[in-house]
Amino acid sequence: MIMDRLYDKAKKRGPVCLGLDTDLSYLPACIAKEKISTGEQLFRFNKEIIDQTKDLVACYKVQIAYYEALGMEGMEAYRQTMAYIRQQGEISIGDVKRGDIAATAQKYAKGHFEGDFETDIITVNGYMGEDAISPFYPYLKEKGLFVLLRTSNKSAVDLQDVDAGGQKVFLHMGDLIATWGKAFMGDSGFSAIGAVVGLTYPEEFELLAQTYPNMFFLVPGYGAQGGTGKDLARVLKKSSCAVVNSSRGLITAHKGKSDDWDFAQYVRTATFTMKEDIVSWL
Amino acid sequence: MIMDRLYDKAKKRGPVCLGLDTDLSYLPACIAKEKISTGEQLFRFNKEIIDQTKDLVACYKVQIAYYEALGMEGMEAYRQTMAYIRQQGEISIGDVKRGDIAATAQKYAKGHFEGDFETDIITVNGYMGEDAISPFYPYLKEKGLFVLLRTSNKSAVDLQDVDAGGQKVFLHMGDLIATWGKAFMGDSGFSAIGAVVGLTYPEEFELLAQTYPNMFFLVPGYGAQGGTGKDLARVLKKSSCAVVNSSRGLITAHKGKSDDWDFAQYVRTATFTMKEDIVSWL
Repeated sequence: MIMDRLYDKAKKRGPVCLGLDTDLSYLPACIAKEKISTGEQLFRFNKEIIDQTKDLVACYKVQIAYYEALGMEGMEAYRQTMAYIRQQGEISIGDVKRGDIAATAQKYAKGHFEGDFETDIITVNGYMGEDAISPFYPYLKEKGLFVLLRTSNKSAVDLQDVDAGGQKVFLHMGDLIATWGKAFMGDSGFSAIGAVVGLTYPEEFELLAQTYPNMFFLVPGYGAQGGTGKDLARVLKKSSCAVVNSSRGLITAHKGKSDDWDFAQYVRTATFTMKEDIVSWL
Repeated sequence: MIMDRLYDKAKKRGPVCLGLDTDLSYLPACIAKEKISTGEQLFRFNKEIIDQTKDLVACYKVQIAYYEALGMEGMEAYRQTMAYIRQQGEISIGDVKRGDIAATAQKYAKGHFEGDFETDIITVNGYMGEDAISPFYPYLKEKGLFVLLRTSNKSAVDLQDVDAGGQKVFLHMGDLIATWGKAFMGDSGFSAIGAVVGLTYPEEFELLAQTYPNMFFLVPGYGAQGGTGKDLARVLKKSSCAVVNSSRGLITAHKGKSDDWDFAQYVRTATFTMKEDIVSWL
């Protein structure tokens, strides 16, 4: 079961989830000047980073929006990247935040759990209720989901913090996720249906970790989005069922320092530093 | 402004939004047997339908999940379909339901309002609040959004109907959409930011149409999802700011009747019948 595998990797290597939200502007000159397609350039960049960091991270998260933005070339790079991560035996999260129902959600399941874009886990949006989640159930012996629970952006409060009978909307979502997840528990005690929870408010995170002890968390809160290693460690000490994503903070570490093939060493160092920053507080 | 154009087309031709949620099983033998790529087959099917229906419909909605399910081939068919609709001067809605924030949402905006997958309007999910919508603002002089408000699936109630201070969650979402849309009003009195509202509960729809008089509605409630022409007409009489989607009900009209190139005539007839079913009650 995928959350068991993720739990093991996070325990062994630390909770870093490296985000391959790759923008063309991040490419070092050594890649950008090559006479290959844009998609091939993006993939080369990602591949080099994967090769140099895979002993340091629990998993990779690939934000599909960065690839959709580049049309067919981008989708080809996304396809190659997902395939490469899985070929290496590493865990890939497709950060696609899809959310649709019935026959349509079945198509998303097929699109992201089979075929060209196959990945181990995807992020999904549960605003439409269980109909947006249940079409993925047949895959959950091997695959996993992270449902958006409490996001870390400023305007998350617009809807998620609306008070609904003494409990905020995001807690209603949390209760739903916990209920849906019950049928898909793994040996490590976590469900194949986890949740995305931002770290903007560490107290809130602690409450969620306590309330939902069987929920694995994907935390997009390190670096650019504000959380610190100390904040994270406080939570991880109590739950240890989370991976922490950083994207730009890691994959642009070479900018202004190297435009050559050693660029990935800078990414490696940044990844190592992030890992230490969290692990040292544990 | 796109909602002005959509309003005009709907007024002139009726409110039918034809959904190109194309599954391989829908292809007639005349296309399925051709020795061309799967993507090319899907596009041929869509193109034929577009050619045969464009005088009858207000717009086309293309559900991207059906194309993602087929990987790169599917994405190529999606690209070609979107381009063809726009080349014909018709309005295309990319039913992508994307929902992400900041830099990521900017990438989605680039991906779906520029380049290979360019479309006129996309559907989006506002669970993450205004951060998931504002990155699209720079495009709204020409482009439009339909934000999920009240969906028509059974489990929509899981979250959307939770009572939040005497008003259901979906009404909070409605208030947000109305607020965001104020800065993007067109000549016809509708904002470039509209909403997706199911027709499962016609009374609810009427309430929404009254509450948000400047909101254009995309209604996925005809046929397969349960709404009737009479139900729709009751609402359209009061607002006339809606287009009504049907997908399977139209694009499988030839099944069991024709496996030849006249297949699109059956789709045309079904589209005409749907249009009449609604318009006759107005």
